[in-house]
Amino acid sequence: MKNKSTLLTKFQRCRKYSIDICEPLVTEDYSLQAEIFTSPTKWHIAHTSWFFETFLIKPHFKNYQTPNPQYAVLFNSYYNAVGPQFSRNRRGLISRPTVSEVLEYRSVVDEYMQKLLSSDITAEQDYLVRLGIAHEQQHQELFFTDLKYSFYLNPVFPTYQILSDSEQTSLFATQTIATPNSWHNYDGGLVDIGSKDEVFSFDNEGPRHRQWLQPFTLSNRLVTNSEYLEFIADGGYQRSELWLSDGWALIQKEQWQKPLYWNEIDGLLHNYTLHGNQPINPNAPVCHLSGYEADAFASWAGARLPTETEWEHAAQSQLVIGEKSKFLTPHPIQDSHTSADLTQLYQQCWQWTSSAYSPYPGYKAASGAVGEYNGKFMANQLVLKGSSCATSENHARVSYRNFFYPPDRWQFTGLRLAKSQ
Amino acid sequence: MKNKSTLLTKFQRCRKYSIDICEPLVTEDYSLQAEIFTSPTKWHIAHTSWFFETFLIKPHFKNYQTPNPQYAVLFNSYYNAVGPQFSRNRRGLISRPTVSEVLEYRSVVDEYMQKLLSSDITAEQDYLVRLGIAHEQQHQELFFTDLKYSFYLNPVFPTYQILSDSEQTSLFATQTIATPNSWHNYDGGLVDIGSKDEVFSFDNEGPRHRQWLQPFTLSNRLVTNSEYLEFIADGGYQRSELWLSDGWALIQKEQWQKPLYWNEIDGLLHNYTLHGNQPINPNAPVCHLSGYEADAFASWAGARLPTETEWEHAAQSQLVIGEKSKFLTPHPIQDSHTSADLTQLYQQCWQWTSSAYSPYPGYKAASGAVGEYNGKFMANQLVLKGSSCATSENHARVSYRNFFYPPDRWQFTGLRLAKSQ
Amino acid sequence: MKNKSTLLTKFQRCRKYSIDICEPLVTEDYSLQAEIFTSPTKWHIAHTSWFFETFLIKPHFKNYQTPNPQYAVLFNSYYNAVGPQFSRNRRGLISRPTVSEVLEYRSVVDEYMQKLLSSDITAEQDYLVRLGIAHEQQHQELFFTDLKYSFYLNPVFPTYQILSDSEQTSLFATQTIATPNSWHNYDGGLVDIGSKDEVFSFDNEGPRHRQWLQPFTLSNRLVTNSEYLEFIADGGYQRSELWLSDGWALIQKEQWQKPLYWNEIDGLLHNYTLHGNQPINPNAPVCHLSGYEADAFASWAGARLPTETEWEHAAQSQLVIGEKSKFLTPHPIQDSHTSADLTQLYQQCWQWTSSAYSPYPGYKAASGAVGEYNGKFMANQLVLKGSSCATSENHARVSYRNFFYPPDRWQFTGLRLAKSQ
Amino acid sequence: MKNKSTLLTKFQRCRKYSIDICEPLVTEDYSLQAEIFTSPTKWHIAHTSWFFETFLIKPHFKNYQTPNPQYAVLFNSYYNAVGPQFSRNRRGLISRPTVSEVLEYRSVVDEYMQKLLSSDITAEQDYLVRLGIAHEQQHQELFFTDLKYSFYLNPVFPTYQILSDSEQTSLFATQTIATPNSWHNYDGGLVDIGSKDEVFSFDNEGPRHRQWLQPFTLSNRLVTNSEYLEFIADGGYQRSELWLSDGWALIQKEQWQKPLYWNEIDGLLHNYTLHGNQPINPNAPVCHLSGYEADAFASWAGARLPTETEWEHAAQSQLVIGEKSKFLTPHPIQDSHTSADLTQLYQQCWQWTSSAYSPYPGYKAASGAVGEYNGKFMANQLVLKGSSCATSENHARVSYRNFFYPPDRWQFTGLRLAKSQ
Repeated sequence: MKNKSTLLTKFQRCRKYSIDICEPLVTEDYSLQAEIFTSPTKWHIAHTSWFFETFLIKPHFKNYQTPNPQYAVLFNSYYNAVGPQFSRNRRGLISRPTVSEVLEYRSVVDEYMQKLLSSDITAEQDYLVRLGIAHEQQHQELFFTDLKYSFYLNPVFPTYQILSDSEQTSLFATQTIATPNSWHNYDGGLVDIGSKDEVFSFDNEGPRHRQWLQPFTLSNRLVTNSEYLEFIADGGYQRSELWLSDGWALIQKEQWQKPLYWNEIDGLLHNYTLHGNQPINPNAPVCHLSGYEADAFASWAGARLPTETEWEHAAQSQLVIGEKSKFLTPHPIQDSHTSADLTQLYQQCWQWTSSAYSPYPGYKAASGAVGEYNGKFMANQLVLKGSSCATSENHARVSYRNFFYPPDRWQFTGLRLAKSQ
Repeated sequence: MKNKSTLLTKFQRCRKYSIDICEPLVTEDYSLQAEIFTSPTKWHIAHTSWFFETFLIKPHFKNYQTPNPQYAVLFNSYYNAVGPQFSRNRRGLISRPTVSEVLEYRSVVDEYMQKLLSSDITAEQDYLVRLGIAHEQQHQELFFTDLKYSFYLNPVFPTYQILSDSEQTSLFATQTIATPNSWHNYDGGLVDIGSKDEVFSFDNEGPRHRQWLQPFTLSNRLVTNSEYLEFIADGGYQRSELWLSDGWALIQKEQWQKPLYWNEIDGLLHNYTLHGNQPINPNAPVCHLSGYEADAFASWAGARLPTETEWEHAAQSQLVIGEKSKFLTPHPIQDSHTSADLTQLYQQCWQWTSSAYSPYPGYKAASGAVGEYNGKFMANQLVLKGSSCATSENHARVSYRNFFYPPDRWQFTGLRLAKSQ
Repeated sequence: MKNKSTLLTKFQRCRKYSIDICEPLVTEDYSLQAEIFTSPTKWHIAHTSWFFETFLIKPHFKNYQTPNPQYAVLFNSYYNAVGPQFSRNRRGLISRPTVSEVLEYRSVVDEYMQKLLSSDITAEQDYLVRLGIAHEQQHQELFFTDLKYSFYLNPVFPTYQILSDSEQTSLFATQTIATPNSWHNYDGGLVDIGSKDEVFSFDNEGPRHRQWLQPFTLSNRLVTNSEYLEFIADGGYQRSELWLSDGWALIQKEQWQKPLYWNEIDGLLHNYTLHGNQPINPNAPVCHLSGYEADAFASWAGARLPTETEWEHAAQSQLVIGEKSKFLTPHPIQDSHTSADLTQLYQQCWQWTSSAYSPYPGYKAASGAVGEYNGKFMANQLVLKGSSCATSENHARVSYRNFFYPPDRWQFTGLRLAKSQ
Repeated sequence: MKNKSTLLTKFQRCRKYSIDICEPLVTEDYSLQAEIFTSPTKWHIAHTSWFFETFLIKPHFKNYQTPNPQYAVLFNSYYNAVGPQFSRNRRGLISRPTVSEVLEYRSVVDEYMQKLLSSDITAEQDYLVRLGIAHEQQHQELFFTDLKYSFYLNPVFPTYQILSDSEQTSLFATQTIATPNSWHNYDGGLVDIGSKDEVFSFDNEGPRHRQWLQPFTLSNRLVTNSEYLEFIADGGYQRSELWLSDGWALIQKEQWQKPLYWNEIDGLLHNYTLHGNQPINPNAPVCHLSGYEADAFASWAGARLPTETEWEHAAQSQLVIGEKSKFLTPHPIQDSHTSADLTQLYQQCWQWTSSAYSPYPGYKAASGAVGEYNGKFMANQLVLKGSSCATSENHARVSYRNFFYPPDRWQFTGLRLAKSQ
C-alpha cells in the first residue's frame, strides 16, 4: 500500500495549478487552436481530466456516470485502444461544452479521484495516478506554448499576464555580465544511462542500460541570442552547406530567416513573448529553434549537437540547479553565473540532441491503453534533453526524454554545443 | 435632403437585430470558424460596424478616434482600396478583442452614426447608409448559415434556440397536405429585368434592361425532400450522365451522397437544423444543395434549372407573399397552399439558376471602395434568385441577385424546376 | 445516303495531317505531359483513333478485334458511358504501347474506316464521322499547344520545326505598318445567333436562337503586344482594382507578371515559340493570356470583353478572311491590313468573351456516349470566339464556341475590346 | 601512384553494365518518371556521366568543352555546391537531349576518363573515380527500382526482359523445401563496427568505432511471403496497436493493405515483377515493404527490427555468400539452404533496421562538393543493411549503410527479425 495522503496532495496541487495558470485568460482565449499541432486551453483542461476518468475512475467506480458520454470521444487525444477520437484539427470548434461545463467536468473528476485516493489503492493505480499527474504537467507546458503560438498570429499581440514595471524588468532585462563559453571534456567509455526506477519516470526513460561513449566535449551553457545573430549575419540561412537536406528544403518552403517569434518593429528586432513583444536580450539563450536550425548553427560554429547519451552522462555528475521564475509568464532568461559547472541544463530551453527518439534496449511499453503514451511515437522524432522555462519543476531530471519532430519550433527549444575530441 | 428620421430608425432596427439574434449564444460560440468560407459571429458583428466606420464615420468626422487602429485590418473583409486585410482563414483566432470589446466598438459606431443621421446628409451618404444596412442584413443571414455549419461539426450537435414543444412542432412538423407540382407556362418574348431604381438595390441589380426569352415553363413550387429522396434512391449520386463534369469530380472527391446536414441516427435520416437533428419532413423543400446537385436533380427529373431572366420575368407578375417565421431559428417549411400562383418564391430557399453571375449590359460598379462590393465577384459563380428563411424580409425583391460558387451548399439553397416549351 | 467518296477523302486528309505535324518530332517528344491539362502527342494520336474505333468501328463490324483491349481504357478521355478511363495525369507514363504500336493501331482503324466509308452509311454514321474528323482537328490544335507547353519547361528550349532564315523572318518579323485601332458600332436589337445547321457543327452551337442586344462597339482588331506592354508598365499586375477577385487571387498565388511564354534573355523580353525564343513583335496580337488577364486589360483600357452574342452578331456580317500560314509552326502574326472591316477574327488568337459557357435555349446534347462531348462541361468556363493560328481552317466559322477555364492560358488566346454605347 | 590499368578496367566494366541493362528497353521507356522519388533511365545514364565530368574531367582538363552547358543544370541531382539543379519532379520532361544525344555525352565522358585513367592519377582522383563507380552502381540499382515503379502504373504491365520458359521457371518457381526459421544468439558486449578502410567504402561507413551491445537474437533468414500473408490474415493492417503512430496515419491515408506490387488477378494474389505479374512464391522473402510495415510485422511476430549495430556485428562472423542471379531481371528468390549460418544477408532484400541514419562518432563528410553525397541526408531516414537482388555485387559488404525514409517501399526491401534476450 502506498502513502495515499501524499499522493492526494500531489494530485490536488497539480490540478490546482492547471486552473491557476488559466486565471489571466478571458473566455475567448480558451478555444484558440492555430495549427493542428496545438490544442486549445479548454481542450487541455478537459483532456487531462478525461485521462483520470478513463484510466482510473471508470475502471474503479462501476456505477460512475460521466457528465456526457461524448466527452469520451471529444477529449481522447490519440488512444486508439480506448476508442475513436474527435478530429485533432477541429478542437477549436468545440464551443460546447463551454468553459464552465468543462470546469464542472473537472470538479466531478476531482471529487471521484479524491474518493479514490482516500482509500487504499493498488500499485497499478498508484502508477496511473503518478502518470496522470506527470501527463497533466506536460499539458501545463503545452498550455503555454500553444497559447503563445495562437496569440502570436493575432496582430494585436495579446499579453498573457499583467506585470508591474519592476517585475517586467526583472524578467526581460539584459544584465551586463554574461557567462562566457567554456568547454568541458569527458572521457567517455562505458557509461550507464536511463532511469534508475527509484522515483516516477516515463516508460521511455528505461530500462537503464550501458552505452559506449567516445571522448567528447560539451559547452558549459546554451547558445545565446547574440551568437545566433552572428550566424544570421554570416548568411546562415543562405548557405546550403550548413544544412541537412530536409532542413534546407523546409526553410526554402517556409521562407524562414530567423527563429520563431522574432519580428521587426520599427526596424528593431524583438521577440514576441507571452508578455508581448520585447527587445531581444543578447545574453539570453536563443529559443524557438527547430532541430534543423539548431543543427545548422552547430555546423556553422564548427561543432555539433550532443547525442542524448553524451548529454545525460555529462549531466549525471551535475547538481541540479533549478531556480524557477516566480512569474507565471515563462521566458528563458540570461545566465550570469560564473560557475565551473554546466549551467542552464534545466528550466531555460529544451536542448536538441542528434539522437533519434527510439526505444532503449529491452524497452517494453506499459501494458494496456497507456502503452500508447510514448512507444508509438518512436519514429521521425529527435530527443531533447533538460527542460524549459515552461516545464514542471519535477520533470527536471537527467533521464527525461522529450521528443519532437525536427521542424517543430513552437516549444521553448534551444541548443548546447558539443564536439568530438 | 433625405428623410433622416426614418433612416435612423431603419439603421437602429437593423443594428438591434444583429444583437438580438446573438442572444441565445454563449461567449464561446462567437469565435467559431469551421472553414475559410464561414466567419465567426464576433467577426460579423465587428465587420458590419467597420463598414459604417470606414465608409461614413471616418470621412465625415475628421476628429473621430477609432477604439483600435488594428480594427481597420482585422475587420476589413476584402476591400483592397481601403487597405490590408487580416487572413480570412484565421478569423477564428481573434480572441482579442473580446466579445465585450467588440460590443463597445459597436456602441461607439452606433453613437457616431446616430449623430450623423440626426443632421442633414448628402445623397451619397444616404446611399451608403442604405448600403450599410443591406450589407449588415446580408451578414445577419451569414450569421445563421456560418453558425449552423460550425455547430454541425461538433458531435454534441449544439442547439441554437430553446423552443417549447409546441413551438418546435410548429416549426418542424409534417403536414398531411402537400402542395402538388404544377407547371406554369410563359410565352417569353421581349422582357425587361433588373431593378427599377425606385427603392434601394445593389449595383449588380441594374441597369434594368431588355432580354429576349423563348417560351418556357416553371414549376409552381420548390422541389421537396421526398422528391430528392427518389433521386437518391434511383442512383442519382452514382449516375455520371446526370452530372456536369466538374460536379461529378467534386462528388467523387468529397464522397457526397446526400445534401449537407443529412445524417443517419439509428438508421433513420435526419437533417441537422439550428434546433438540433430533426426528422426530415418529406413535404418541405429540399435544402442545402450545391449548384451541381440542383443541376443533376433537374436532369434526372427531365427538366433544367431556370435562367435568372426566366425566374425574374415569371416572378414579376407575382404578388410577393412572405410569411416570415416567428422564430429566430431559420428553417425552410412545408408549403400547404393550393394557390394558382407560384409559391415559395421567397423566404424558404435560395433557388439556383443556370445563369452565370455576370454584369448586366451597361453595368457600372459604384465608385470608390464600395465598388468592390459586387462587381469583382463576377466570375465562376451562379445567380440564385428569391430568398431564404434566413434572409432579411426586405431583401425579398424580384431583382435581387444572390451569387455563390456551384460547389457551395452551406446556404439555405434549393431549386425550382424549369423546362423549355 | 450521303456522298461517301467526299467524306472518305476528308477523313483521310484529316488523318494524314495528324501524322504530318508529328514529322518534326523525335520519339522522345511523343510522351511529354507537363501538366494534367495537357496530353502527350502519342496519346492524342491514339485517342483520336480510339474515337473512330469506339463510336463507328465496334458498333458496325461485329467481328472486329481490337489490337489490344487495354486501349479502350488507356485512350478513353472522359466518356463515362463507354467505360473506365486511365488516370488523366499519368498519360505521360504510357511508354507501352510504343509510338510504332500506336501507329499500327491507327492503321488498323484507318483500314476499317476506309471499308466503312466505301459502302453506304447511315445518317448517324455520317454525323459521327464528321464529328470524329472535327474531334481529331481539335486534337491537332491541342497537339501544338500541349507540345509547346511541355517544351517550354525544358531549359534547352527545343525547337519544333527547322525553318530557313527567310522563312523565319517571314514568320516572326515586325512590319513597320501596324493596323491602327478603330471602333465599329452596332445597333443591337433582336439578333439571331447559333449554327444554321446547313453544315457540320457541334451540338453546343445550336439551336439557332434569338437574343436582344443593346447597342455596342467592337474594336477592329486584336489587342497588340505593345498595348499589353503599356498595361504592364502602368502597373497592371499590381492594381487590384482592375481584376476580378478570383483572378487577383490567382496572380498572387502564381506570381504572374506577364503572359505565358514571355521570358527575359539578357535583359530583353522574348516570347517562347515553337521555333524557340523570339523577340516580341510589338504589332502582333498579344497571346497566351488567361481570361482574367484579358478582363483586367480591358478594364485598364476603359473597355470590356465582348459577349459571345455581340462577337457573333458582328462577325456574321463579315467576310471570313483566313490566310493560313504556310508553315507548320503556329504563331500569331501581325496584321497590316488597313481594311474597313473587322480583322483577325480567325486564325490568330482565340478571343475571350465575358460569356459563361452554358447551353443555348433548347439545347439538347447528342444522344449516346457522344452526348458527353460538350454538354457536361457547361460550368465554370468561358466562351472564346474566332479561332487561332493552330486551329483547323474549317473550324473558322462564326457559330463556333470554344471554351476554357478563366485561368487557362496555354492555348493561343488573346482579346478584342468591346464597349457599351 | 595507384594501379591505373585495374581502375580503368573497373571503370569500363561499370560503364558498360549501365548500357547493358538498358538493352531490353525501347526509346519510350527511357523517360518514365512516375513520382518525384524516381528518375527516368535517361536521366540516370546522363547523371552518372555528369558525375565524372564534374568531379574529374572539368577540374583536370582545362580545355574540356562540354557537349552542352545546360547539362550541368539538367543532370545535377542535388549538389548545391556545384550549382543550380533542374526541378527534380520534371526529369521526365527532358525529351531533348534525346537518348542518342545522352549516349554521345556518355561517349565523350568515357573518352576523357580513359585518357585520365591512362596516366598517373592522384590519390584524390583515385578516390573520386572509385566513388564515381560506386555511385554509378547505386544508380544501376535505381534504374531497376524506378523502372519497375513506373511500369507498374501502366495497366498493360510491361515486361522488362524476355525469358525462355525454363528461365522463367528458374526465376519464379516455388521450391518445396523452404528454410525453416531458427534463432541465432549473440552475447553482445563491446563490439566494433564500421568500415576498416582497407577497400573502398562511402564516408558514412566510418570511422570504425566501438559500441556496447546487450545480448540479442537474430533470425537465420528473411521473413517470407507466407509469414506476411499470416500477418495480413490476422488483421495486421487493421490493428493500430501494432503500428508506429506515423505509420498508422500513413496506411490510413494511402489505404495500404498489402505490400507494394501485390495485386489480385482473377481473385488470385500476384506480385508485379519486372517480368510481369507472377504468382506469389510463399517461400520467397516478402519484399517491397515500407519501414512501418516491417516494424508492424515484427511487433505482430513478438519480435522487433534489429539495430544496425546488431546486424553488422552478427554479419561480421559470416562468410559472405552471394550467388547472383544470372538474369538481368532482379527478383528476390527462395532460399533452400539448410545452413547453420545466417542466410540471405545479401542479394535478396535490403533489411530495415530500427536505427536512424545518423553520423558515426567522429564522422567527417568528404571535403568539397562530394561532401554532399551522404552527410546531408542524416535526418528522418532509417538504415537498411545487406543488399538486394538489384544491388551491385561488390556493394555486398558488412559495413554498407543504405538509407531510406520509413514510408519508402519501391526498393527491394524486406526484413529479418530480432529479439532482445
